[in-house]
Amino acid sequence: MSVTPSSAPGGPSDEEIRALDTHWRAANYLAAGQIYLMANPLLREPLRPEHIKPRLLGHWGTSPGLNLVHTHLNRVISARDLDAVCVWGPGHGGPAVLANSWLDGSYTDTYPDVTRDEAGMARLFRRFSFPGGVPSHVAPETPGSIHEGGELGYALSHAYGAAFDNPGLLVACVIGDGEAETGPLAASWHGNKFLDPVHDGAVLPILHLNGYKIANPTVLARLPEGELDALLRGYGHDPLYVGGNDPLTVHHAMAGAMDTALDRITAIQQEARADGGTRRPHWPLIVLRTPKGWTGPAEVDGLPVEGTWRAHQVPLDQVRDNPSHLRQLEDWLRSYRPEELFDDHGRPAARVLDRVPEGTRRLGANPHANGGLLLRDLPMPPLERYAVPVDKPGATLHEPTRVLGDLLARVMADTAERRDFRLVGPDETASNRLQAVYTATGKAWQADTLPVDEHLAHDGRVMEILSEHTCQGWLEGYLLTGRHGLFSCYEAFVHIVDSMVNQHIKWLRTTRALPWRAPIASLNYLLTSHVWRQDHNGFSHQDPGFVDHVLNKSPEAVRVYFPPDANTLLATADHVLRSRDYVNVVVAGKQPCFDWLTLDQARAHCARGAGIWEWAGTDDSSREPDVVLACAGDVPTQEVLAAADLLRRHLPDLRVRVVNVVDLARLMPAEEHPHGMPDAEFDALFTHDRPVIFAYHGYPWLIHRLAYRRAVHPQLHVRGYKESGTTTTPFDMVVRNDVDRYRLVMDVIDRVPGLAVRAAAVRQEMADRRTRHHDWIREHGTDLPEVTDWTWQG
Amino acid sequence: MSVTPSSAPGGPSDEEIRALDTHWRAANYLAAGQIYLMANPLLREPLRPEHIKPRLLGHWGTSPGLNLVHTHLNRVISARDLDAVCVWGPGHGGPAVLANSWLDGSYTDTYPDVTRDEAGMARLFRRFSFPGGVPSHVAPETPGSIHEGGELGYALSHAYGAAFDNPGLLVACVIGDGEAETGPLAASWHGNKFLDPVHDGAVLPILHLNGYKIANPTVLARLPEGELDALLRGYGHDPLYVGGNDPLTVHHAMAGAMDTALDRITAIQQEARADGGTRRPHWPLIVLRTPKGWTGPAEVDGLPVEGTWRAHQVPLDQVRDNPSHLRQLEDWLRSYRPEELFDDHGRPAARVLDRVPEGTRRLGANPHANGGLLLRDLPMPPLERYAVPVDKPGATLHEPTRVLGDLLARVMADTAERRDFRLVGPDETASNRLQAVYTATGKAWQADTLPVDEHLAHDGRVMEILSEHTCQGWLEGYLLTGRHGLFSCYEAFVHIVDSMVNQHIKWLRTTRALPWRAPIASLNYLLTSHVWRQDHNGFSHQDPGFVDHVLNKSPEAVRVYFPPDANTLLATADHVLRSRDYVNVVVAGKQPCFDWLTLDQARAHCARGAGIWEWAGTDDSSREPDVVLACAGDVPTQEVLAAADLLRRHLPDLRVRVVNVVDLARLMPAEEHPHGMPDAEFDALFTHDRPVIFAYHGYPWLIHRLAYRRAVHPQLHVRGYKESGTTTTPFDMVVRNDVDRYRLVMDVIDRVPGLAVRAAAVRQEMADRRTRHHDWIREHGTDLPEVTDWTWQG
Repeated sequence: MSVTPSSAPGGPSDEEIRALDTHWRAANYLAAGQIYLMANPLLREPLRPEHIKPRLLGHWGTSPGLNLVHTHLNRVISARDLDAVCVWGPGHGGPAVLANSWLDGSYTDTYPDVTRDEAGMARLFRRFSFPGGVPSHVAPETPGSIHEGGELGYALSHAYGAAFDNPGLLVACVIGDGEAETGPLAASWHGNKFLDPVHDGAVLPILHLNGYKIANPTVLARLPEGELDALLRGYGHDPLYVGGNDPLTVHHAMAGAMDTALDRITAIQQEARADGGTRRPHWPLIVLRTPKGWTGPAEVDGLPVEGTWRAHQVPLDQVRDNPSHLRQLEDWLRSYRPEELFDDHGRPAARVLDRVPEGTRRLGANPHANGGLLLRDLPMPPLERYAVPVDKPGATLHEPTRVLGDLLARVMADTAERRDFRLVGPDETASNRLQAVYTATGKAWQADTLPVDEHLAHDGRVMEILSEHTCQGWLEGYLLTGRHGLFSCYEAFVHIVDSMVNQHIKWLRTTRALPWRAPIASLNYLLTSHVWRQDHNGFSHQDPGFVDHVLNKSPEAVRVYFPPDANTLLATADHVLRSRDYVNVVVAGKQPCFDWLTLDQARAHCARGAGIWEWAGTDDSSREPDVVLACAGDVPTQEVLAAADLLRRHLPDLRVRVVNVVDLARLMPAEEHPHGMPDAEFDALFTHDRPVIFAYHGYPWLIHRLAYRRAVHPQLHVRGYKESGTTTTPFDMVVRNDVDRYRLVMDVIDRVPGLAVRAAAVRQEMADRRTRHHDWIREHGTDLPEVTDWTWQG
Repeated sequence: MSVTPSSAPGGPSDEEIRALDTHWRAANYLAAGQIYLMANPLLREPLRPEHIKPRLLGHWGTSPGLNLVHTHLNRVISARDLDAVCVWGPGHGGPAVLANSWLDGSYTDTYPDVTRDEAGMARLFRRFSFPGGVPSHVAPETPGSIHEGGELGYALSHAYGAAFDNPGLLVACVIGDGEAETGPLAASWHGNKFLDPVHDGAVLPILHLNGYKIANPTVLARLPEGELDALLRGYGHDPLYVGGNDPLTVHHAMAGAMDTALDRITAIQQEARADGGTRRPHWPLIVLRTPKGWTGPAEVDGLPVEGTWRAHQVPLDQVRDNPSHLRQLEDWLRSYRPEELFDDHGRPAARVLDRVPEGTRRLGANPHANGGLLLRDLPMPPLERYAVPVDKPGATLHEPTRVLGDLLARVMADTAERRDFRLVGPDETASNRLQAVYTATGKAWQADTLPVDEHLAHDGRVMEILSEHTCQGWLEGYLLTGRHGLFSCYEAFVHIVDSMVNQHIKWLRTTRALPWRAPIASLNYLLTSHVWRQDHNGFSHQDPGFVDHVLNKSPEAVRVYFPPDANTLLATADHVLRSRDYVNVVVAGKQPCFDWLTLDQARAHCARGAGIWEWAGTDDSSREPDVVLACAGDVPTQEVLAAADLLRRHLPDLRVRVVNVVDLARLMPAEEHPHGMPDAEFDALFTHDRPVIFAYHGYPWLIHRLAYRRAVHPQLHVRGYKESGTTTTPFDMVVRNDVDRYRLVMDVIDRVPGLAVRAAAVRQEMADRRTRHHDWIREHGTDLPEVTDWTWQG
């Protein structure tokens, strides 16, 4: 393994290097201790089986490398008084980050029972990966963390998200060579084309090549040096190399590389801030090549462990039962010379803490890593300014997302100085008709521009890259460090981040139980270009299942909204942008959509989450209706209103109630979701026993799964998207999926007792209209005029 | 825009170049015609509004570039008699690929009504993106395609999948600069570290930099040339550059680059096949830099279009209503000189077809792109050889996936010559305990090796890279070209490919309606290291929701299995590996699991999909039971059996029926899924009206959503994972989620009428045991001995 000493002049003295090594040994000792020991933490007596945990869990392999990085970050933070956080990509190396947090005192500040002495060390060890204790990974419970590191791929996009609009912040980011193989990580290297050296902070990637994953060598570690260098320069970085297996040599090289990197960052920022940042800089990056499981057992039972994949988790197993392993563990732990590292009370020796920063400069205590502490309310303008006038329902049309765009433009303008609001999306902001925001800010772009380009700006706060993963990662990093944002995405392709939103919801759910974690702004999705209006793209772009996915997760952290028109979208957006600690999914169309509610009505409707639209129905409050027509989603709402219109004209004495649902969780039982309706309230809307024809935006069985406990459920008949799609007209899409007005009228006739005979002619008329539709579109390629010209005549 | 002429000697004559240009013009004409025309296809008369489609849909921007690549692939295929397919990453440019398929006659071979003459041309134009017609993208309906191109990111991994084990095949792969920004694409560049030049075919990536996405410049197109070159060399390629906007110059350069690339590929393969392939080659790659919407309108309404993002979809809109646009369209179409391209009957002129290959050499007719034509049944060994002996249920333990590993090793060995079976996984094959396969083959690896490495081999057919996206893409490409495979994955992280599996299921669903598409092998998932046994990793690794996601999709293409022990896993694996055109999800544990069924019993149970385990219950067939204990999944099955055991001992006269479900879709109504049970059969298993306590592996509401129409549904009480996880013991996981044996017994007591009083003491005992559990694990960190020592005593 090659050693590339830093070429930086000066550098730390041998004395300082020895102090750093002392800190590193202490961290390594504490990391190994967490994996193995439940007693005798300072090895005051010979190690015995009962000192060993009964279940050995944790990841040793990456821990010494993380400890090395932490030790050296401590040094430069102290020396330069840096405001810094670190994203630990190999976050499954929880023992390392916990060890460092305990050493710098931030762990004890956060969890006072885990004192910085022998008793606390024993507690630190025991609770690691122990039932009722703390997770084995860097997790929300870990001070100083904004990144879990269990599901790999998001370290670098989180780091960029943290750095945006934090010009004084350094975000170090350790990227493991395993994680580097993932798609999301591979895409996120290009984040440097979006980082503005004037208004943003710096990201310092540290690519840690320890050579192996769980069971295999890694791709990047086995590239020839020239190929790796070309790759990193191709990513736009100016790499520095550190490597070896002799600790003191590596400390020297690492200290030099850190100094060089930080000097370059300072120079880049100073130059850009002097001249306005006209060129995209080539930011430094450190490649750290050290053995996996470094300083751990070199061999176990005759097989090499240190420097191989065998060091990934627990290098010595069966320690309670295997005396030779027990002895080997004791030798290993004693190799760190704990007697030099901790005083008689088990407190870290002064030499260990020599370069450890203090107060909020500690990586375990920087407020950026507990972003809610820094969060300010967004300045939300009065919605009245943006609301569309509605003299009567269904008489005018607006594009809801375009109306929202005007509101977002105002928020962008009002945060121009604060710079704490960003809009992200995979090249779809304009396609999703939010382009009004460009009146207030540009699209972030540091690369070259051409005269034909529009709206690109070094300091833009709209973020567009054709990677949903990168958009999501950036936004998570931005929110977790105490800012606000919105992700606008084609509905079908938000599934690309299914697994990322899982992890974010898990994070939110966990932090809700941690009083020291201040609430952060919600992660807000605007899903548009939705299943019903993919005229250009067809079947591949039709999938409304993200809502199903999200509703599987912790209900306390999840909200789903289907505003049916422009004003309800405004009211919904206003709500979600003010909220905290949720994932809010807002599904709304970008195509012209009837305006149903005034702003005041919209606000009241959103506050209730679901309600009767009296003006649309023909029932009165004195009696139960004959049938309930329910809807959620803009297109189903239109079809339900059109069906109600047909029923009013063809069956004027039928008592029809129209119910619209904005907040989908309202359908759930009150004990299953904080927004769930009590049964009495639900029954008051949907009745106990009348037929309910529910036209839903997505997969129909979701409504059944939410409402199966309700009294009316045997009478609930749901229409929705059933995976019948292609490139076709908007109305053909609803016909194909049986959500069209004619089918809904037929459903009513089929389900209201006694109507089948009385309304047979009406039913036939509806069936005929569906046939006419089929004939018409095949000839004309457009929808029936009676459909395209329809307006509400209530 | 720079032009880099090929440096290859020789190259095509000017005459040949002009013939290529004629073909390209024809393809461009046909592409534009599809977007715009519904009549007058040959422009025999001046263009009038009624010739124009009423809805203008399609993507022009990428089409000229795709046409250029197709034209030049035709040339080299003809000249070198190549066996070649092409993956069109920018597959939304459907008009281009359809145009070429019509030109080479493969479209008419596939759809005889679309003749290669004027009438057929009119039909080709009209049906494009027209209701009842064909999708706007390259799609399953497109001859020669294995790739949709609607959701971007998977072109290159599909191409590698197609090339593996096809040593005679060239797989060209066009990568758009938009798609190149996605994570999955960014990761898939490293496929060349896994491509064996001896046993695999060649992949020729063609990176098409047309500069813009929907609304933005692309990252790669704006890299300085040196940075782009470094990046591509860092990816391990030896790039060739072609660019410009003068067609004849670009044709010359492209022909030269194609020749150079293919010469290099031949040299690489010949050398490797002579010496056994000891070095990883640097494969060629072509960078093609041409304007977006090339040859289309330069300006529209005073704004530049050609060469900008405005050319992305339909460059001229409102053509029916805007006479100036209509005239501009006519000028544009006539600029291709259709009178030179087609004869009086509308047939392509001879000069157009000069370099078009014939028969199965045509890209639209290569059987590799209709892989089912080449598919052979897998040689499946007799399961008896691998089955575990079961003298009595629940007396022995095996690790199911390890048992499966022996079977897979045999399949690997028996396909050593045929090379048509691969196992993919993100670095988890051994972690998932399938390592027996290494006795039969190695892990594919072309990079350097070290002495400490194990099981790496140039020609290995186990594929491990830490990218679920790449694993999925490789396997899809491999299956779509007529081979077999299995994807083993941690259960939680298979969500990473949610969106990819969506697209694959959509593909399968569409091909099922296309008689000319031969069935392909199913895509088989083995989900293991599942939610209940993430002792090392905790909450981030706990998510059983992939099943929910998949069950939202087309039921004809989706199957889900929960084999409860080793022998049922064998029987399930045997079934899924023989099946066609499905996505099969098999969820099974890797941890020691009780053996419940003999192989014969397992086969019978799997054939039924769900059944009563008479030996486990206390009811008899003469009467309805008092309660049904149902289970799906290995851990819930164990808890249900343990609960049945407790009930037998504590409440011996209670008639308990135990039902196990292997095939989850059996719970669905027969009319909703091909495997769904008729009501009578369902009721015979679960009763009409007795309490059913169902312990399910995943989110409990899924069972409700599948079974809500059944008579017994009001009595159905489901326990499952409810997002309560952390790093803890296996039994604590079931306790936290209320799926443990004690809770199940309490559920029975709570729900069987009359039992609450009679069995109050038993209930208290169960509650006490849960308390004892909590106390015990917090003290000892391990599960109660009464749990870990439990065996079935039936």
